[in-house]
Amino acid sequence: LVSSNGPVDVVTFGEAMLRLSPPSFKRLEQTQSLDVAVGGAELNVAAGVSRMGLRSQWVSRLPDNPLGRMAGNKAAEMGVGVDFVEWDAAARMGLYFVEYGASPRASSVLYDRAGSAAASMDEARFDWETILAGTRAFHTTGITPALSGSCARQVEIAIETAHKLGIPVTYDLNFRARLWSSDAAREIQGPLMSMLDVLFTTEEDAERVFGIGGSDHGEVARRLSEQFGIPTVVVTIRGDLSVLRNTWTAIAYSEGQICDDRVYEIELIDRIGGGDAFAAGFVTGWLEAGVQQGLRLGNALSALKQTSWGDMPFVARREVDALLAGGGTRIVR
Amino acid sequence: LVSSNGPVDVVTFGEAMLRLSPPSFKRLEQTQSLDVAVGGAELNVAAGVSRMGLRSQWVSRLPDNPLGRMAGNKAAEMGVGVDFVEWDAAARMGLYFVEYGASPRASSVLYDRAGSAAASMDEARFDWETILAGTRAFHTTGITPALSGSCARQVEIAIETAHKLGIPVTYDLNFRARLWSSDAAREIQGPLMSMLDVLFTTEEDAERVFGIGGSDHGEVARRLSEQFGIPTVVVTIRGDLSVLRNTWTAIAYSEGQICDDRVYEIELIDRIGGGDAFAAGFVTGWLEAGVQQGLRLGNALSALKQTSWGDMPFVARREVDALLAGGGTRIVR
Amino acid sequence: LVSSNGPVDVVTFGEAMLRLSPPSFKRLEQTQSLDVAVGGAELNVAAGVSRMGLRSQWVSRLPDNPLGRMAGNKAAEMGVGVDFVEWDAAARMGLYFVEYGASPRASSVLYDRAGSAAASMDEARFDWETILAGTRAFHTTGITPALSGSCARQVEIAIETAHKLGIPVTYDLNFRARLWSSDAAREIQGPLMSMLDVLFTTEEDAERVFGIGGSDHGEVARRLSEQFGIPTVVVTIRGDLSVLRNTWTAIAYSEGQICDDRVYEIELIDRIGGGDAFAAGFVTGWLEAGVQQGLRLGNALSALKQTSWGDMPFVARREVDALLAGGGTRIVR
Amino acid sequence: LVSSNGPVDVVTFGEAMLRLSPPSFKRLEQTQSLDVAVGGAELNVAAGVSRMGLRSQWVSRLPDNPLGRMAGNKAAEMGVGVDFVEWDAAARMGLYFVEYGASPRASSVLYDRAGSAAASMDEARFDWETILAGTRAFHTTGITPALSGSCARQVEIAIETAHKLGIPVTYDLNFRARLWSSDAAREIQGPLMSMLDVLFTTEEDAERVFGIGGSDHGEVARRLSEQFGIPTVVVTIRGDLSVLRNTWTAIAYSEGQICDDRVYEIELIDRIGGGDAFAAGFVTGWLEAGVQQGLRLGNALSALKQTSWGDMPFVARREVDALLAGGGTRIVR
Amino acid sequence: LVSSNGPVDVVTFGEAMLRLSPPSFKRLEQTQSLDVAVGGAELNVAAGVSRMGLRSQWVSRLPDNPLGRMAGNKAAEMGVGVDFVEWDAAARMGLYFVEYGASPRASSVLYDRAGSAAASMDEARFDWETILAGTRAFHTTGITPALSGSCARQVEIAIETAHKLGIPVTYDLNFRARLWSSDAAREIQGPLMSMLDVLFTTEEDAERVFGIGGSDHGEVARRLSEQFGIPTVVVTIRGDLSVLRNTWTAIAYSEGQICDDRVYEIELIDRIGGGDAFAAGFVTGWLEAGVQQGLRLGNALSALKQTSWGDMPFVARREVDALLAGGGTRIVR
Amino acid sequence: LVSSNGPVDVVTFGEAMLRLSPPSFKRLEQTQSLDVAVGGAELNVAAGVSRMGLRSQWVSRLPDNPLGRMAGNKAAEMGVGVDFVEWDAAARMGLYFVEYGASPRASSVLYDRAGSAAASMDEARFDWETILAGTRAFHTTGITPALSGSCARQVEIAIETAHKLGIPVTYDLNFRARLWSSDAAREIQGPLMSMLDVLFTTEEDAERVFGIGGSDHGEVARRLSEQFGIPTVVVTIRGDLSVLRNTWTAIAYSEGQICDDRVYEIELIDRIGGGDAFAAGFVTGWLEAGVQQGLRLGNALSALKQTSWGDMPFVARREVDALLAGGGTRIVR
Repeated sequence: LVSSNGPVDVVTFGEAMLRLSPPSFKRLEQTQSLDVAVGGAELNVAAGVSRMGLRSQWVSRLPDNPLGRMAGNKAAEMGVGVDFVEWDAAARMGLYFVEYGASPRASSVLYDRAGSAAASMDEARFDWETILAGTRAFHTTGITPALSGSCARQVEIAIETAHKLGIPVTYDLNFRARLWSSDAAREIQGPLMSMLDVLFTTEEDAERVFGIGGSDHGEVARRLSEQFGIPTVVVTIRGDLSVLRNTWTAIAYSEGQICDDRVYEIELIDRIGGGDAFAAGFVTGWLEAGVQQGLRLGNALSALKQTSWGDMPFVARREVDALLAGGGTRIVR
Repeated sequence: LVSSNGPVDVVTFGEAMLRLSPPSFKRLEQTQSLDVAVGGAELNVAAGVSRMGLRSQWVSRLPDNPLGRMAGNKAAEMGVGVDFVEWDAAARMGLYFVEYGASPRASSVLYDRAGSAAASMDEARFDWETILAGTRAFHTTGITPALSGSCARQVEIAIETAHKLGIPVTYDLNFRARLWSSDAAREIQGPLMSMLDVLFTTEEDAERVFGIGGSDHGEVARRLSEQFGIPTVVVTIRGDLSVLRNTWTAIAYSEGQICDDRVYEIELIDRIGGGDAFAAGFVTGWLEAGVQQGLRLGNALSALKQTSWGDMPFVARREVDALLAGGGTRIVR
Repeated sequence: LVSSNGPVDVVTFGEAMLRLSPPSFKRLEQTQSLDVAVGGAELNVAAGVSRMGLRSQWVSRLPDNPLGRMAGNKAAEMGVGVDFVEWDAAARMGLYFVEYGASPRASSVLYDRAGSAAASMDEARFDWETILAGTRAFHTTGITPALSGSCARQVEIAIETAHKLGIPVTYDLNFRARLWSSDAAREIQGPLMSMLDVLFTTEEDAERVFGIGGSDHGEVARRLSEQFGIPTVVVTIRGDLSVLRNTWTAIAYSEGQICDDRVYEIELIDRIGGGDAFAAGFVTGWLEAGVQQGLRLGNALSALKQTSWGDMPFVARREVDALLAGGGTRIVR
Repeated sequence: LVSSNGPVDVVTFGEAMLRLSPPSFKRLEQTQSLDVAVGGAELNVAAGVSRMGLRSQWVSRLPDNPLGRMAGNKAAEMGVGVDFVEWDAAARMGLYFVEYGASPRASSVLYDRAGSAAASMDEARFDWETILAGTRAFHTTGITPALSGSCARQVEIAIETAHKLGIPVTYDLNFRARLWSSDAAREIQGPLMSMLDVLFTTEEDAERVFGIGGSDHGEVARRLSEQFGIPTVVVTIRGDLSVLRNTWTAIAYSEGQICDDRVYEIELIDRIGGGDAFAAGFVTGWLEAGVQQGLRLGNALSALKQTSWGDMPFVARREVDALLAGGGTRIVR
Repeated sequence: LVSSNGPVDVVTFGEAMLRLSPPSFKRLEQTQSLDVAVGGAELNVAAGVSRMGLRSQWVSRLPDNPLGRMAGNKAAEMGVGVDFVEWDAAARMGLYFVEYGASPRASSVLYDRAGSAAASMDEARFDWETILAGTRAFHTTGITPALSGSCARQVEIAIETAHKLGIPVTYDLNFRARLWSSDAAREIQGPLMSMLDVLFTTEEDAERVFGIGGSDHGEVARRLSEQFGIPTVVVTIRGDLSVLRNTWTAIAYSEGQICDDRVYEIELIDRIGGGDAFAAGFVTGWLEAGVQQGLRLGNALSALKQTSWGDMPFVARREVDALLAGGGTRIVR
Repeated sequence: LVSSNGPVDVVTFGEAMLRLSPPSFKRLEQTQSLDVAVGGAELNVAAGVSRMGLRSQWVSRLPDNPLGRMAGNKAAEMGVGVDFVEWDAAARMGLYFVEYGASPRASSVLYDRAGSAAASMDEARFDWETILAGTRAFHTTGITPALSGSCARQVEIAIETAHKLGIPVTYDLNFRARLWSSDAAREIQGPLMSMLDVLFTTEEDAERVFGIGGSDHGEVARRLSEQFGIPTVVVTIRGDLSVLRNTWTAIAYSEGQICDDRVYEIELIDRIGGGDAFAAGFVTGWLEAGVQQGLRLGNALSALKQTSWGDMPFVARREVDALLAGGGTRIVR
């Protein structure tokens, strides 16, 4: 837990939702109870950054009801500042339902986020100059501009403000086909790319949004970097051995170099938030010691997060450090 | 379980929602799990009617996703026919959250039903003549017309069709201040009143919608009956000894007579659906043997339902009969 | 926990069953899980006696499968000796299902005990002289002879053996109308009565089996004592304020005297096994210091048992002593 | 959910039981709760057929108590018609207990079904001509005739009636060594074989009942087909990589041809009901488009069912179609 | 949720523990699971103050392990600042076990807090001038000085510092007989009394520590106020109707006046933390508008807290305001 | 369940703790409930020996409170005698917290056992001559002498007494680095080695305590045997395929011979207690038929135990025998 006094290290911006999932691999149709968590790509990143030892703020809008308060509470529980969250007396809390799968049944998500407080952004008047003053990085993802036109406009303003203030911008492409089309995603996000310092993506998302794909992930990163003038592009790589067993790694193109890191084999407990944990670890490591440290922290935090329950990473920095130092799979006692 | 072949006895029309409630008196803000049930005033009545031994159909619209299927499944589980439910590929499932209280904290409900499949009724083309053919009663409540203009229009068509076919119409006033104003409720429902055969209400709702209130519940029933020409008006009466201990009874005005019944003292497990269980019992008893039998079945079914979990009454007809025959509070073994 | 070396203080004889009950006042029809406990009148008494500080053995027959082992394990967990339990490779474990009620819905029990190992007693060859050698009391109840003819025969042999050895016999009338008729109960049990030292009954059971009833409980005890020549007859008295709120006390007739004790008001968590806990406390107190101490220990143990979950009393002797010494209802910390 | 008006597509006949299983891989001896499900080979098939889009009826006998009603309710919840279920006021509900295993501990089943309502069939007077009128297939399994002599007689009558009416009969050999011997199974079932249109079996069951085995599963199917004159014989093939990881496929011999299908690798959540889901999928596909479609639907439905909890398949037709269309193991969102 | 930038309104100081309690009224001996909460008198007050709309900091020591982090997280979740918590790499987390009772079994607490990080206070070097700078009140209780000599010394320093800085000190006597004797409590706390602005106590604690008792609670308050020169003394009054049903109110003596407030009747869900919620409400109301508002907010917050689970009050300010405005016990929807 | 009359076969000596673990792979920081079990190396062995059909006693010290009673109860539930357990009115119950992992996150243990009743051994006056009279083996582990100086002294006395009485001593090296250093372990345990009949160890522990390691496990066993003059040394070998998938076997050096056994591949449900189950199986088999049978029973019992929940093995002897006889991974029904 880190003091929230003074400017924080990282500010993130986006929606959080309640996550409702049946226990024990039950299907939604048959369950009599739902496990409750809170998550959202940018909140997850703010939480991961906080767990790794930096200070973070999460900027968003929440309904002023018990569900919205739960989301705010959970952010605070993870050490994330919520000083700039807007409270909406009228709009609803976004929800999503998850059914965890096992081979050959993939996990699946049912979104119920239309009309949420976060999507109803036009009433918000975020003072980005104040919010960003003194921070070391600003992070958001391709989900936020997909929520509504006003959300897209806020993302644009926030990134421009950060850019103007010289604050590095990190951005996860996170394409969501149920929220918008490839065309819309390209049209809205294309102009933002030149203001980014770090872009995170998968090969699939890069292909769907910008038509830059292929099996050579380093080449995908290089092409994105060169096309948009982004100093660092990171491609995360998930291998699906089965629904419950994945591999995870990432590769970066930065300053003309390809950087890579070890591949983790993961016995999946909860894969949701794995990419966000990577981004959180990367941003922390990158602020500490550059791209290679970003990859190492990001991959380790992501691998560990995927072995425990919830969108946000209940992982300690010392656990990440121990894994990086070669910790094995034997019981620790 | 009753065969669903041939025409059913009772048809009901209205929305069902998923009900999400924290276990063990937890507050929403603190819970890590939510109990899941399915309920809705008119579905609850159809279920109660089925449990009491008659055949019922529930007419509604549901989203064509796992949450909608759960609602349809649960209706079928209770023996309710779902042959005329419309499936909507786009709209969402209505939800509501309940926090169960204990004195001095009242139970509270947080609705999240905007944009539901049921409220998006204009696309539906219910063929009421077919649906109602051969049934012995049609039931709906004041919640349905409050959902949307198209819902109100469907209620009007359904009642008119039933009236034209000589099928008795039973109606629960069920005023929901969060859905519409007293003025709107009066304006929309006033014209329907003259087509009703039985009206259920509380004194509070009658006061808020029609300005007919007062501590003499029989007088309220009489005035409603006379003002709108409704043959039978039933006022249900809940006494709040505490949040977890209530009394329950009802009084009817019918053919110039006041009928009443015993007062039940209830150790509340789940009060939601208590009024619907009463209506289900009343309709069953009324079809069997008139108003007095309606009151007796209605009060007994309602009292028993309020001692078990869920909106719909998992109560057997023989349990109702045993209670009416004087069953005590000793363990049965 | 008491050493089981050497002869024990109390031997009991009868069936144990698995108890399966829905959590949270759910009905059987709607539950997705069942809480599991082990109970049976005579096992409950052996457990209570052990908790109060004496040594006990429970004689029975169990199936040699995981369910039977569970029952044996749970007896041992309570400190009850199971050295004389017979293991049956073929017969099934008796079960019962409980639905906990709330006013006006009484709790109810659904037995599924036909064909159980305990009822299949004819194969057993209990050596009662060995089993009873050195014990201070033998206890059984009216449930055991009702299970089967061979069970009735074993009860007869056991009581005769105890009588012959000068070991006091305590007996709970425990009439179960679903197992046998009043006539059969009278015919089988009548001849046993003269060999008893203590008879426990309710007024209702005495009326149904022996036609000795009435609102004066002391008078019922006196008449039973005199008619059958039983030195001590105890009538337990449960007052049903509501399904979840009872009173409890007992009255004894012994050596021409009526003894009584305070009345406990109980917020019921689990009333099943309340009578058995009383018998266990009575037997313990009676062996310690006679009838009055029996009533005091019995009532206190029973009242405490009814506030926690399970048939067997997870109550400590020191808790009973503290209650008898005037412990209040304030939190202890 | 499919309308149950008019004749259904598939009628099945057999017993359902309550399934009681400890959560979280606990052993029966140690569990304090049991998960509750309802299942039975023929009910599972009726449920699967309904989920795949056809209409089905399940014919059986159930006790007229809460446990029996639960079974009937759950059939209805899955969209299965229960119009011809007989209700028995006296007999008990069959139960079975399951302990889920992990290598090297196999899962195991403890049956407690003796004396069940379904086995007490002699009182039933099923009017098979009425029941089967207009249906497209009748399905039962080798479990039903093993339950009792009267059950065997009912199976014989039902198959003869179907045969006479020209309704195809599908039959799963499902040998249960705890219910009868190989000799009895052969003696009773041998004469039925010539009336079947489709026989489902494993190689092991064919070997044990008819002495037709071997590692060439297609050859087993061919020999069964030719020996008994069954038009289509399907052999299901489960590969045990470990207790929690299996492969699944099936092969058919029909009209002189061997048909096969892809092999699914399954991360097992609940293998019980996997064969029934296959049969349900096969029957549906076979009625739609013949043997090859039967194999495809059967294998896909079975693989998906084994990844979720319960005997009956909470799987949607669109999920089966998506898997057949090449759906991967990535999260769907 | 309130911004934690700048000085806070209220600082509290004391230990938090993990609370472990069996669900569903089970006894510790029989439970297979324990519910987990975090609580401690002074943390509870900081949480309540935050919920009521003021900003708070909680000063304490926690072990630097997952259990300590959980406590810090939960404080943050409630909006409490944890900037001055000391982290101890060696000491353990204090625990306590609770068994919830029902009449006649009182609830009971088993402490396991010896050797906790909070009790190992001598290593801490709290800079009280910095911590208290700008705050409007400092609160601690009689539990803290009872933990260890160094804790007592820290309490003394903190109170002296607050007194010197002109910051009001509020103090809950909270006598814990298991931690120290009446003599020690009087000796250590007596000298602190003259520096207090508000003292909270029960009549029983005042009697045990200072020998000032009696049934006239206002008189007890007056005598404490006059003897020690404390401007405001508040006596909280709990009436034990039964273990599950209490009354609650409080009376204050301030500036020569007795103030009282309405008596709440409470259906107890969790009484632990009821006194702390009162103190939190009182401090908030007292800072807002003086003693009478303190009583009103304190009693309402306490009554509401006792109806939900956990030591800390998951109650919203608007719920308190609604109760004060006359909210009833009817369901809110 | 085995009669506890007369001398037992195996006596064990050591501490038991409450084990608290979050369900469903949750982290401690995020859990709202903890699963409760009781375990400890020597209790686990006594339990395993009892499950395999021999009689056992477990000697220890427990606090005289509900947590201590739970531990004693659970020992008795497993058929373990607790006649010589000492009850301590003052000391606390040792606890440990477990987080179950999944690759790449190893499971981890957080001990909270300082100040436990078992470690406070100096007050105990175990009469080892009486305790050991007539037993066939005495077992303890390297954890017990590590707890405190008085514990080490008791271990020394017990082993010397057994040695003097000609009772075989079996000893598991079980090095716990958090309890003592390698130097202390060697210094205290070195002198005991010559009195042992069987030593169990892993290669890692032998290396850390005695500097005897290497990849040739048989060679490690031989060197330990020869250096200390221990007749039989057994090295257990766990292969970590992943956190959730291990292999298990053991190798013994005895009378100049190396014995080995098959390797089990295990889908881990709960690995804690795996080594203790091995020791229990080995001791049982060794007493039955020597070292080879010891290895066979030990490996099979250990493999089965690791597939179910809890420290103590809820495994039946017949399950072990069935596995040894070649039982497969198919469902047993």
